[in-house]
Amino acid sequence: MRNLKLHLRYDGTNYHGWQVQPNDRSVQETLQGAVYGVTGEHVKVTGCSRTDAGVHARHYVCNFHTETKIPCERMPYAMNTNLPDDIAVTLCEEAGEVFNARYDAKSKIYVYRIHNSNVRDPFEKDRAWHYPIPLKLENMQRAAEYLVGTHDFTAFMAAGGQQKQMEKEMYEVSVSQQDKLFEIKVHANSYLYNMVRIITGTLVYAGNGKLQPEDMKDILLSKDRKRAGMTAPPQGLYLHKVFYE
Amino acid sequence: MRNLKLHLRYDGTNYHGWQVQPNDRSVQETLQGAVYGVTGEHVKVTGCSRTDAGVHARHYVCNFHTETKIPCERMPYAMNTNLPDDIAVTLCEEAGEVFNARYDAKSKIYVYRIHNSNVRDPFEKDRAWHYPIPLKLENMQRAAEYLVGTHDFTAFMAAGGQQKQMEKEMYEVSVSQQDKLFEIKVHANSYLYNMVRIITGTLVYAGNGKLQPEDMKDILLSKDRKRAGMTAPPQGLYLHKVFYE
Repeated sequence: MRNLKLHLRYDGTNYHGWQVQPNDRSVQETLQGAVYGVTGEHVKVTGCSRTDAGVHARHYVCNFHTETKIPCERMPYAMNTNLPDDIAVTLCEEAGEVFNARYDAKSKIYVYRIHNSNVRDPFEKDRAWHYPIPLKLENMQRAAEYLVGTHDFTAFMAAGGQQKQMEKEMYEVSVSQQDKLFEIKVHANSYLYNMVRIITGTLVYAGNGKLQPEDMKDILLSKDRKRAGMTAPPQGLYLHKVFYE
Repeated sequence: MRNLKLHLRYDGTNYHGWQVQPNDRSVQETLQGAVYGVTGEHVKVTGCSRTDAGVHARHYVCNFHTETKIPCERMPYAMNTNLPDDIAVTLCEEAGEVFNARYDAKSKIYVYRIHNSNVRDPFEKDRAWHYPIPLKLENMQRAAEYLVGTHDFTAFMAAGGQQKQMEKEMYEVSVSQQDKLFEIKVHANSYLYNMVRIITGTLVYAGNGKLQPEDMKDILLSKDRKRAGMTAPPQGLYLHKVFYE
């Protein structure tokens, strides 16, 4: 049996996240429908991450087992004619029998986009967090530095998170600004529930003066969710890149 | 009576263009509704241009006469709380009694965005023309040069255009490329019906080899719409900037 690895890109606005939901449209279910349209097979597609409702993916990897003889190079076109415009298959690769898009992921980069202006931008609707209070880039950058390295990120996990391994290795947390657009880039081996959105909310508090950059150290050590900032809304979050061996 | 000049930005995806339509949602009508919400007055808002259904505006100027005492600096906020997320008022200025956003416009810049890839991009849905056949930038740039200057643009006007003055002064027609995204920038004193979309369709034919760059000269001289290229779809077109004295 073949094990196909698909690379995707999707606008999550109209989906209740990746995972199949009883009464809501999910990316996973939509993709499984397209696989059925192409191969006639009912398969379970395994995704690299359970993105939340409204969260986007510039790069997402999933896999499924199939008997189809369709060559990899024809799969993106075949899938895309069976998918809505807000999801695209960009590449298909033959994977080894045991490859699992979720468990084999070595690390992931997320990007969070903030539109910092007192006037909203219609072209950033559903694509960024419109945050009207002025942010100080330098304070956000100084705060971000405290998160790099290996830490217990319990303070940055939403209630309902099921993970047991609270220690994560953070390779990069950087903040950049282009005109009114701030981008937070986070690269870690794995993530706790809502971790990037809580990191973003906390860096925004460092940017607007609610917190001092050096408070980040205490917040990490406290392991107390209430010490960190708000959970930033989903529409600014993008799974940017997934890495495998 | 005050004459207010509003600067806007809008995503045209969900509108049947600028102008009020009997059975469709228009930007003009939506704006007039917001003015009523803010001032209690039923006004006619005059726009700088009749953008088509699905066309966007990064900068659009309109004006209306009003008795309201609300200061200009408070108008963007007041209007935006009465407008849907895909339209934003970015600035309000006091204009002279006789100012007319349409007739007083000296020139306009339009930008047309083409996503040139065999795989569609979900984030460019409704924001660019997805064109899968490879385009040669250099040929498009050479073709564009023929359009600069003062010419009769009859060959680039759609049937139904009512204009009588076919000669237009073209200050700039340039084509640039960043990865898979091509941008055509057009700056003229005024425009014929669908002119930018037909220019785009013709430059795309120069880019894919259907036309030679030097054919542009004959197409202009022919004054024959059938000699020019296709009308590019609306979703790639942006009114980029409007200039006044």
